[in-house]
Amino acid sequence: MATAITIGIPVYQGVDLLDVTGPHEIFGWMNDPPEVSVDIQLIAASPGDIKSRDGFVFKPTHTFATATTKLDALWVPGGEVPALLREMKQPSPYIDFLKKQGDARFICSVCEGAMLLAASGLLDGHLATTHYAFVPCFSRFPKVKVAQGFPRFVLSGNRLTGGGISSGLDEAFKLVELLTDYETAQGIQQTTQYYPCPPVASELKPATSCPLG
Amino acid sequence: MATAITIGIPVYQGVDLLDVTGPHEIFGWMNDPPEVSVDIQLIAASPGDIKSRDGFVFKPTHTFATATTKLDALWVPGGEVPALLREMKQPSPYIDFLKKQGDARFICSVCEGAMLLAASGLLDGHLATTHYAFVPCFSRFPKVKVAQGFPRFVLSGNRLTGGGISSGLDEAFKLVELLTDYETAQGIQQTTQYYPCPPVASELKPATSCPLG
Repeated sequence: MATAITIGIPVYQGVDLLDVTGPHEIFGWMNDPPEVSVDIQLIAASPGDIKSRDGFVFKPTHTFATATTKLDALWVPGGEVPALLREMKQPSPYIDFLKKQGDARFICSVCEGAMLLAASGLLDGHLATTHYAFVPCFSRFPKVKVAQGFPRFVLSGNRLTGGGISSGLDEAFKLVELLTDYETAQGIQQTTQYYPCPPVASELKPATSCPLG
Repeated sequence: MATAITIGIPVYQGVDLLDVTGPHEIFGWMNDPPEVSVDIQLIAASPGDIKSRDGFVFKPTHTFATATTKLDALWVPGGEVPALLREMKQPSPYIDFLKKQGDARFICSVCEGAMLLAASGLLDGHLATTHYAFVPCFSRFPKVKVAQGFPRFVLSGNRLTGGGISSGLDEAFKLVELLTDYETAQGIQQTTQYYPCPPVASELKPATSCPLG
């Protein structure tokens, strides 16, 4: 019998596209070959289309009310600053949903999704990272321990937090390994031909202020 | 005044999600800062939702009839085998659309999108690559020159073809450089934190038969 794995991605207007779809692509291949049956839920506050930061329109599969109550993994994506501020503002159905999912086997974020996790208290006492430009924002959450530098992802207990946007791909492979095994992650690396080699080079400088205003 | 760039991505039922959304994410950041105004068109045969191979539902922005007639870049994504066979079967509105866009400044594919470009004749005389498992399929298109090994992408004249799925990210950065300049690509690398470091290692073996049946 196939192992059933449910991954929930709570989305919102202004979410970052690749934070959602990069991991969606990687997770989906856990179904192939079918030793694993993975259910990826795109979960929104209410039914209706979601428009990403860059104008890509997609359909959630679940609402906060219909999502699986105990997820194998909660995956919180980042998004544009106005969207983050909106979703973090109390009372916040989004933050309430994250808190309700606090029993997920793995609690993950990519990019500024870490701000949403931090606002929900789910990173308290854990080492974490986020988009490099948002690292100074962690000072607003003094119980969160901040990883040095710009790691692709940080695993702290069952908390897995990623750096900016594209970090979600590396991080998704790590989550696949955690949910299944290394060999499954290798198979997906081959299928998705994930042997990246950027044709451009640059460096990141530490940010000095939090863009959340 | 901002430089206007129009990129068209012809999509279809069963398309690969990351082949579309990875590049969409990278291209979108050409707008920031606004020296460039980029218009990314998701172009389908007819109006209505598109469901990707892995069940992600999204909305095209244009149809074959309403898309810009002379694109700066045509970006052809791959997809599941039944979808490829369906879109390649004559008479094919999809292949006809690709032929009509043959005057685009850059003609690109990622993953098995190269099969669709090859079927349209747009790779004739050019060096090209595709998903590593589909390289043997190029033998069906004897006018296409096949790149050795599994490169992330190959530039041949104004034809840019990518390897499997995730190759589209590296390739998208190359297209950004071709459409704008290296510094713009560097800025997007920083914003998207594209310094990949896979937490898994494996090797690809050359495929011996074409999965198109």
